[in-house]
Amino acid sequence: MNEPVMPMTKRDLLSMIGTAAGASAMYMAMSSMDQAKASDFKGPPKLEGDNKGASVLILGAGVAGMTAALELSRAGYKVQVLEYNDRVGGRSWTLQGGDTYTELGGATQTCQFAPGNYINPGPWRIPWHHHGLIHYCHELGVALEPFMQVNYNAYVHNTQAFGGKPQRYRHIQADFYGHVGELLAKSVNAGALAQTVSKEDGEILLEALRSWGALDRNMRYVKGAASSGRRGYDKEPGGGLSAVPEPSDPIDVQTLLRSGLWRSIGGNLQWDHLSTIFQPVGGMGQVAKGFERAVGHMVRKNSKVTAIQQDEKGVTVSYKDTKSGAVMKASADYCLCTIPLPVLAQIEMNVSPELDAAIRAVPYSTSVKVGLEFKRRFWEQDDQIYGGITYTDLPNSQISYPSTRYGDKGPGVLLGCYVGGAAGYELTASTPAQRVEKVLEWGSQIHPQYRGEFMNGVSVAWHRVPFTLGCFGSWTEASRAEHYKNLCKFDGRILLAGEHASYYGGWQEGGITSAIDAITRLHQRVIAG
Amino acid sequence: MNEPVMPMTKRDLLSMIGTAAGASAMYMAMSSMDQAKASDFKGPPKLEGDNKGASVLILGAGVAGMTAALELSRAGYKVQVLEYNDRVGGRSWTLQGGDTYTELGGATQTCQFAPGNYINPGPWRIPWHHHGLIHYCHELGVALEPFMQVNYNAYVHNTQAFGGKPQRYRHIQADFYGHVGELLAKSVNAGALAQTVSKEDGEILLEALRSWGALDRNMRYVKGAASSGRRGYDKEPGGGLSAVPEPSDPIDVQTLLRSGLWRSIGGNLQWDHLSTIFQPVGGMGQVAKGFERAVGHMVRKNSKVTAIQQDEKGVTVSYKDTKSGAVMKASADYCLCTIPLPVLAQIEMNVSPELDAAIRAVPYSTSVKVGLEFKRRFWEQDDQIYGGITYTDLPNSQISYPSTRYGDKGPGVLLGCYVGGAAGYELTASTPAQRVEKVLEWGSQIHPQYRGEFMNGVSVAWHRVPFTLGCFGSWTEASRAEHYKNLCKFDGRILLAGEHASYYGGWQEGGITSAIDAITRLHQRVIAG
Repeated sequence: MNEPVMPMTKRDLLSMIGTAAGASAMYMAMSSMDQAKASDFKGPPKLEGDNKGASVLILGAGVAGMTAALELSRAGYKVQVLEYNDRVGGRSWTLQGGDTYTELGGATQTCQFAPGNYINPGPWRIPWHHHGLIHYCHELGVALEPFMQVNYNAYVHNTQAFGGKPQRYRHIQADFYGHVGELLAKSVNAGALAQTVSKEDGEILLEALRSWGALDRNMRYVKGAASSGRRGYDKEPGGGLSAVPEPSDPIDVQTLLRSGLWRSIGGNLQWDHLSTIFQPVGGMGQVAKGFERAVGHMVRKNSKVTAIQQDEKGVTVSYKDTKSGAVMKASADYCLCTIPLPVLAQIEMNVSPELDAAIRAVPYSTSVKVGLEFKRRFWEQDDQIYGGITYTDLPNSQISYPSTRYGDKGPGVLLGCYVGGAAGYELTASTPAQRVEKVLEWGSQIHPQYRGEFMNGVSVAWHRVPFTLGCFGSWTEASRAEHYKNLCKFDGRILLAGEHASYYGGWQEGGITSAIDAITRLHQRVIAG
Repeated sequence: MNEPVMPMTKRDLLSMIGTAAGASAMYMAMSSMDQAKASDFKGPPKLEGDNKGASVLILGAGVAGMTAALELSRAGYKVQVLEYNDRVGGRSWTLQGGDTYTELGGATQTCQFAPGNYINPGPWRIPWHHHGLIHYCHELGVALEPFMQVNYNAYVHNTQAFGGKPQRYRHIQADFYGHVGELLAKSVNAGALAQTVSKEDGEILLEALRSWGALDRNMRYVKGAASSGRRGYDKEPGGGLSAVPEPSDPIDVQTLLRSGLWRSIGGNLQWDHLSTIFQPVGGMGQVAKGFERAVGHMVRKNSKVTAIQQDEKGVTVSYKDTKSGAVMKASADYCLCTIPLPVLAQIEMNVSPELDAAIRAVPYSTSVKVGLEFKRRFWEQDDQIYGGITYTDLPNSQISYPSTRYGDKGPGVLLGCYVGGAAGYELTASTPAQRVEKVLEWGSQIHPQYRGEFMNGVSVAWHRVPFTLGCFGSWTEASRAEHYKNLCKFDGRILLAGEHASYYGGWQEGGITSAIDAITRLHQRVIAG
């Protein structure tokens, strides 16, 4: 991933390897290149050739804007970045003790968390295949640690199932797999699949189902060593004379199916959630800090863009210094605009009707996150839940436990709510204090310790975030077909980038890959021009 | 888990909660207590009452011996520990640069790893439900970090499948789930399960299979957005005008079944492998160091036990100082012996024929681990594998990638082999240099970078480890039935503890729970006596 793009064709390379190291090495190299195909990030862009002293004005110092600033400045471009906030990073943001945040409507929260505790209001995880972001984390000295996506001892919860009692994820998954295995084995043995699977393959399938589903010798998923070796025991193995384990009772298939709790399994099998997933040590704001070390000197903070005007020679941007109130202008040959679309739609700019329509075509997600600080990590101490996520049908949707500082004896912070849609709108309409109160009420149904251990909370309702007015762009198939290319292609001397200009909506990787795509096209135009 | 055992009955407690907080709180408390049942470790033992100044001589300063030393000394017992090695910890051990290790037969290896690199020759992971070990890690200041058990981008490899080409774990698992889902859906729709699953439940099952198996609207697992959203894309989503993803081709069901690679999935679903799993920051040797901080002053190292003699009044142990050669004696009222059975079987001791038979009844596993240091982390840089395990049918069995210091640019260490059984015997019979050479040969078939990047290697063949003569006790149902109780019960004034005296064979948790069970019985005898 860190290697430069190979300056020869694939056929050349394979031929060379084949000659030097024999067919086996060539075969392995082919395999390796097949895998390399799986990443759209091919390494940092190689912006070679004469840029003719061109200048680029970048609007927004989020990861897209800062990626562009880093690579354009390396290629010799004159770069300036304007940023609305008094910090860089945009949604790549960590809230920790002492941080103050004022939302649209004027409510101001000062985060009360103890040192070391935090929430990431925006992106919070980095899958291993977000090669662009991982590349820059490694390059910029941002240390990564595992994010615990799946915790088999966390809960899944449906208010309408099991009398509202939360269930352990491990019970639901093990039992679902066991029952699926038993039912399919029964079908194979009854000859129901004779036209689909040959007799020989059917035998292999039965063996696979037994091994995967923890079935007994009669191909049944029943209470015993096999099933408890997956879901856990009523009494675990121990030592000495009190050592013998006691198996646990699987949930019957009807109860399991009707509980609907199997819905929580598929999400953890999604491409974006497959281990290894990372988080930056110290919070996602460390990504912003890493970029800031490299390009911070090019960024003018507290600069609110009010107009973007282009002509045949260049682009001029008017902006207001949010501290002094002074209105100022900046000009460059080109403008790379990473301003989120709901904000951009309110800025005067002379672009084509097509781009203007595209900017207005993408609604933004109404995500809400609420962080709660408690006196102790009761989820670890009482429930043996170390990291991971509990899923619920309550409006808070999920509870995420910290993936770091396991066993810490001091106060701990949960992400007590991460939800969009209708529940997101309701929370957005509430005051910060009301949001915390609602999230406490919901979460208490899963963790009765909530009320007794609660210290303080902080919330970010993304539709009230002044610098984005929403969490991320929500494309549909129809809006993609009509507007996506118009959003991404050059409009005069203006190019857009950001997660909204990608197929990675809501992910920093979208911002990075879109920035690289944009500046690569910009550079091609400059050297061709 | 850190809470003291409740000094009231469960019924008392529930009644109290019910009165104070209403039925809902009581229900939640019941749920919480049900879960607490799942751990055999109930917190540290409460050794209350008059111990009459009794003394205990502990043989072996592994985690079992040191757990006993810690808790017995807290309860006021006079404790001395004899340890054969010049370090504490026993199999709880980390090999790093500069460490020297001499195996049976005389071969000496000095580990050449760069600073920060290591392997754990013995235990290497700590599941969340090993409550005893986690309790002591938290108490003794041993920091824990996630061990990456499952990495969807690691390989599964069968020399007889796919022309010997390694496959990504994510492809095998996603496709197995997809095909299982499709086949079971087909059976349901064909009415093959009508007598087992009601029509209504069958509808729910179909919905569950679609959601879990990533089936399309026709309940088929085919190339497209759903399947690529699990297994990954041929071309991943990106940004800007080069953004459109290209789906990948699932493996057909026959090829998948015949590959046998589904065998690797079940192991990751086992109770002992469910996330969250930990490793101590800095290697498993940190567990030893944590205990040493608490009980190191009670341990006499370099002390090889040669005889254990008991009479009605106490136990006298003869031991040789391995540095000076002097033969010495130590006595106490009781002896807690944690010496591994193959070593103990060679020590003269006057115990009952039943205990003597039990000591000789348990063969020890022949595990071999080989650590390889390479010039760079090619598995991260070239293959995008961050932690986790590759499984192969080659004799090395698995390759484990480091779960820490992701993205490090310096030399990296793989666990290149962890195998028992026949392959373990073969490697044990080889020299350390031959072991490394064989492991390089096998691993090169998965990672062709091996030869070019190799720096040095180190191996531990447990049957040649002088202080254990094997990796861990391998009980069978028959040997358990005949010998387990005899091994664990008091024999005069001698009690055994260690993973071999537990149902957690091969795990440190077995040593800890067996030590607690043993000293609890010892204490009951002392206060009753």
